[in-house]
Amino acid sequence: MKSVLRLERAEARAMVAAALDKAADLKVPQTCCVTDDGGFPIALERMDGARVTGPQIAWNKAFTAAGHKRSTHLFNTPPNGPALPGNEAFGIQWSFEGRFAVFVGGFPVVVDGAVVGGIGMSGGNGEQDTACALAGLDALAKLLAPLGHRVMVQADIKL
Amino acid sequence: MKSVLRLERAEARAMVAAALDKAADLKVPQTCCVTDDGGFPIALERMDGARVTGPQIAWNKAFTAAGHKRSTHLFNTPPNGPALPGNEAFGIQWSFEGRFAVFVGGFPVVVDGAVVGGIGMSGGNGEQDTACALAGLDALAKLLAPLGHRVMVQADIKL
Amino acid sequence: MKSVLRLERAEARAMVAAALDKAADLKVPQTCCVTDDGGFPIALERMDGARVTGPQIAWNKAFTAAGHKRSTHLFNTPPNGPALPGNEAFGIQWSFEGRFAVFVGGFPVVVDGAVVGGIGMSGGNGEQDTACALAGLDALAKLLAPLGHRVMVQADIKL
Amino acid sequence: MKSVLRLERAEARAMVAAALDKAADLKVPQTCCVTDDGGFPIALERMDGARVTGPQIAWNKAFTAAGHKRSTHLFNTPPNGPALPGNEAFGIQWSFEGRFAVFVGGFPVVVDGAVVGGIGMSGGNGEQDTACALAGLDALAKLLAPLGHRVMVQADIKL
Repeated sequence: MKSVLRLERAEARAMVAAALDKAADLKVPQTCCVTDDGGFPIALERMDGARVTGPQIAWNKAFTAAGHKRSTHLFNTPPNGPALPGNEAFGIQWSFEGRFAVFVGGFPVVVDGAVVGGIGMSGGNGEQDTACALAGLDALAKLLAPLGHRVMVQADIKL
Repeated sequence: MKSVLRLERAEARAMVAAALDKAADLKVPQTCCVTDDGGFPIALERMDGARVTGPQIAWNKAFTAAGHKRSTHLFNTPPNGPALPGNEAFGIQWSFEGRFAVFVGGFPVVVDGAVVGGIGMSGGNGEQDTACALAGLDALAKLLAPLGHRVMVQADIKL
Repeated sequence: MKSVLRLERAEARAMVAAALDKAADLKVPQTCCVTDDGGFPIALERMDGARVTGPQIAWNKAFTAAGHKRSTHLFNTPPNGPALPGNEAFGIQWSFEGRFAVFVGGFPVVVDGAVVGGIGMSGGNGEQDTACALAGLDALAKLLAPLGHRVMVQADIKL
Repeated sequence: MKSVLRLERAEARAMVAAALDKAADLKVPQTCCVTDDGGFPIALERMDGARVTGPQIAWNKAFTAAGHKRSTHLFNTPPNGPALPGNEAFGIQWSFEGRFAVFVGGFPVVVDGAVVGGIGMSGGNGEQDTACALAGLDALAKLLAPLGHRVMVQADIKL
């Protein structure tokens, strides 16, 4: 047996709140979903006026980022994005009955070097989705810093 | 064209909070999902320690209750529950790739006589799920009463 | 954040080996799948001569037991099994596109009171499936006892 | 009727062990799945720290390679990869509800000129997946050589 960290509801809720506050600032109605490390939702909210497709897509992105331990936009960034035709993971996007999302808006939640969950946004363009998700991750970082935990962000490196 | 009422995020969030506060009182870890009238989630939360299967099942129940305008336990109550073998809607539970839930825990959100959404619980037994969902509906009723709207509950009649 | 235990590959492999050794003793070709707490496989083996349907069914059972924190036969035991027509979870078996298994052969892996995974058998009758899964759980208990961890078995109480 | 060779559990287990030993050497956490000629798993293991998406994807790749008698990367290699847009099998990747994998990591197990199974890897890049799968095939070759059987590798020709 190995001891690992598990994301809790209060933390997930704080992440969703921060991400959607950012979306409100940007004046773009969004859905945010935060999952555990198996891609199962802990908290999800859809803003008034946001698309009805948002919950499934935000979940898909959070599932993919958590389960595959990778920010979803990285699959799809030209020219080397692995899910693009001719690249080495082309086709992975049809795994899991289409729930494997290879487009911007899903980010793993990485605490102390281990993936403990995912955050997924749906509703904005890539820049907006990313800004909101980063606001969610930042909220978690602020919660965990006093406890000595460090939240890392793939997005700030790769975008 | 017709003007209809639409459930908003602040209301859905209050319903989820009240339902899960009730679950905490009952000491049973639950997931609660509140959807709009199309069965698309507005708010969903899973308590610490609740089953990972909860989000999908709670969504399924809320979707069914909202979309089919009926409390989910009514499909399955002997002897006349329509989804029981030999009764007239037997088989409806295989609609929508299994997302049509015919078991206790999903209730339509009925405001001024019209279905505006659904609330679904997963995690407890039927009595617990029902108590939590009713707490959620009651929270909505309290929010809307000062505005002159009336929230009706199928559950308090049929259970 | 909360600290939780995670099942490791060496432990899962030992469980599969013990379960299938038991199946060999019983002269019934079986498949055994051991998953983590999200229902994702860690180890799976199918014996020579066992059914080709075994891997999916064993996975389904382990997923259900882990994700829903309940031995699968409990859903289906007359007269009160909740997945039986007229009982309170009738219909849950069509959740997750049919991967939610409500028949004997899936058991949660419970260590120190928390569900850390699932073990699923396919190939024998209920008595054989149960004997094999218990052998798998017993193997884990023997591995973990020297480390001070206790493996609990729902099956020995409820069957 | 015709007599055919069938891969056995001990052989599949040796293949998985060798493939994952190679992954450990490469320091990349992987999942390996070995299937029979119908694409049904015989053995599957996921290393500690490997992605939860690995079991399904590794199975998908092994299924495709076994069932379609072709290494999965061949579908996707420019310019003639048949699953690329405009080429003659474009669309095959949506067969079987997305379980038909057209990206690197799945290889048929070919013994004495006949496909007897498949091996699929998930977790590394293309080079790593291939190295691990070849280690698995090599382990089978070593087991079978004393018995006069020859294991052939599509990968060593086409990569």
